[in-house]
Amino acid sequence: MRTRAAVAVAAGKPLQIMEVNLDDPREGEVLIEIKATGICHTDEFTLSGADPEGLFPAILGHEGAGVVVKCGPGVKSLKPGDHVIPLYTPECRECPSCLSRKTNLCTAIRDTQGKGLMPDGTTRFSMLDGTPIYHYMGCSTFANHTVLPEIALAKVRDDAPFDKICYIGCGVTTGVGAVLNTANVEAGATAAVFGLGGIGLNVIQGLKMAGADKIIGVDINDDKEEWGRKFGMTHFVNPTKIDGDIVAHLVNMTKTPFDKIGGVDYSFDCTGNVKVMRAALECTHRGWGQSIVIGVAPAGAVIETRPFQLVTGRIWKGTAFGGARGRTDVPKIVDWYMDGKIEIDSMITHILKLEDINKGFDLMHEGKSIRSVVVF
Amino acid sequence: MRTRAAVAVAAGKPLQIMEVNLDDPREGEVLIEIKATGICHTDEFTLSGADPEGLFPAILGHEGAGVVVKCGPGVKSLKPGDHVIPLYTPECRECPSCLSRKTNLCTAIRDTQGKGLMPDGTTRFSMLDGTPIYHYMGCSTFANHTVLPEIALAKVRDDAPFDKICYIGCGVTTGVGAVLNTANVEAGATAAVFGLGGIGLNVIQGLKMAGADKIIGVDINDDKEEWGRKFGMTHFVNPTKIDGDIVAHLVNMTKTPFDKIGGVDYSFDCTGNVKVMRAALECTHRGWGQSIVIGVAPAGAVIETRPFQLVTGRIWKGTAFGGARGRTDVPKIVDWYMDGKIEIDSMITHILKLEDINKGFDLMHEGKSIRSVVVF
Repeated sequence: MRTRAAVAVAAGKPLQIMEVNLDDPREGEVLIEIKATGICHTDEFTLSGADPEGLFPAILGHEGAGVVVKCGPGVKSLKPGDHVIPLYTPECRECPSCLSRKTNLCTAIRDTQGKGLMPDGTTRFSMLDGTPIYHYMGCSTFANHTVLPEIALAKVRDDAPFDKICYIGCGVTTGVGAVLNTANVEAGATAAVFGLGGIGLNVIQGLKMAGADKIIGVDINDDKEEWGRKFGMTHFVNPTKIDGDIVAHLVNMTKTPFDKIGGVDYSFDCTGNVKVMRAALECTHRGWGQSIVIGVAPAGAVIETRPFQLVTGRIWKGTAFGGARGRTDVPKIVDWYMDGKIEIDSMITHILKLEDINKGFDLMHEGKSIRSVVVF
Repeated sequence: MRTRAAVAVAAGKPLQIMEVNLDDPREGEVLIEIKATGICHTDEFTLSGADPEGLFPAILGHEGAGVVVKCGPGVKSLKPGDHVIPLYTPECRECPSCLSRKTNLCTAIRDTQGKGLMPDGTTRFSMLDGTPIYHYMGCSTFANHTVLPEIALAKVRDDAPFDKICYIGCGVTTGVGAVLNTANVEAGATAAVFGLGGIGLNVIQGLKMAGADKIIGVDINDDKEEWGRKFGMTHFVNPTKIDGDIVAHLVNMTKTPFDKIGGVDYSFDCTGNVKVMRAALECTHRGWGQSIVIGVAPAGAVIETRPFQLVTGRIWKGTAFGGARGRTDVPKIVDWYMDGKIEIDSMITHILKLEDINKGFDLMHEGKSIRSVVVF
């Protein structure tokens, strides 16, 4: 069949809207009609050429929602008409990682996914002249139709709006999940969130859900304060507008008459800046503070700290897809949204048509959007 | 009173054996007769001048065992004749850290301890000419008598030999505790231990006690293989004698027909070398590997890694005094020794008199001792 897609033809070039060929789903694969897709910083990271593993031509996009059109041979858990969210972190429930009960990082199709291919080592997309087009993060949601392995699709309820729940395919789950799955924040905790973009705001609403007492947002853009407060942030710090060091500032903010040491119980880096990651670790409480790296750093960048920070009880962790097992947890997060436990609508600041997808990247660069969503 | 001590008069100089003045214990303090004391790398670190917080003149030593001679006013939990192990990490059971249930890093007397003083801001030791002599890590066990706060003394059973259980005051508890308290290793786990000195061997016996399956020792000295095997090590790697990188080597060693990713579940740095700390993190398993920093790094040294290591599920932690709450856990470890659950005797390779204490440092430099113990 043919479908319409925004194709990343080369690093640093705008996406090109074009008709492409899409082959039928093979064994264990499913053809999806994408109804809506968010535009995420990770798409931008790859499109810009900064991603050393970026492949071109490719169909980017990994934050989608849609409907099953056709199932390939052997598919058991899905049928045409099912509403689904594509998962860049699949959940096979059979590999050592899925069976470990310790991680969400399913490895069933990791090798081929990293090469822009379906599990059998081929692509389903091609240019009209036959040139193969790479898949992206196993999803390629910047196309009206796409093919994914069954294990990379979360079946969700039918009454949830596609243009909202597509955001659960990455940003919402990453932020909320980092709090609930990776950090396992307890009620009464104090936390600092560095970077109040799409991920940071979702970390904040995860912290609010977990019952955190003090939720400190840190951003160099004062405009983000209003956004943060809307989602549960209790304090805001602009590091460019304080005297001295952000670490000492946060430690002082969290001292109490009983606890004269100070430091947050949990911190979250949502910036991708390795210097910020260090500050995020070091502002946590001696003895038990945990810092969670969420942001994606530039290729080759390293984080550093004195080992004394760890020896005195701080823990440095990271999270991918918020530690969520996609097929199990994503439907639950969709329920939370439908039940009003989490908020998404106001974060979708721009709705675009596929033709205007490059405008979504412009809005991101200009810091004008929290999330732009393309609807088909 | 007067007592005999080995005094560190200046950085880089041998200890000097001399008579010193020792004042009576004050409110909440206890006078101890030290019966035996180990010589640890941390004493050497300070004596060498490498410790930026080192103070002189001081009485070093922090790995002792002895008997209560006299209690100051207000002391309730100890009486003359009690056998005790001094604790450089006290346990007040009242500060925010003790009450957190999340850390052993009691902060009740941290400030004065770091300045070489008793909690009231003075020293009990002085030269015969009246010059104050600093305390060290709140213990100063390189003296026949010393004074400690009540909260920094673990009461232990009377039938345990001083020249063995003194080692529980630091090395044994640090190594075994890192496994049981900090990493919380489960039966069936795989682990790598970097550096098979006094700490590393105790990590190994902690791993054996926890039921680890594969216990890989890593050391550049082949002589350590026999030592490691004695305590439960199942595999030995000399990184200077393999082809290629130690990280890849360890990852390959832990691959199985089921798990083709590889990596150890837990790793422990017992070297203090920040490059080794990085390798220790990176050889752990994607998704859930934990690396525990135990070694003390040179002043100013930093650890580094790509944040991707954390984002893909590895956890970087540290431990001090093996995460043990001294007054609660140290008596238990003494019981384990007396019950034969852990081994100490063979690790005490040299017994010295106080006059020969500098020889103990020489043996350490030459790599000839696991632990030298001074008996009074």
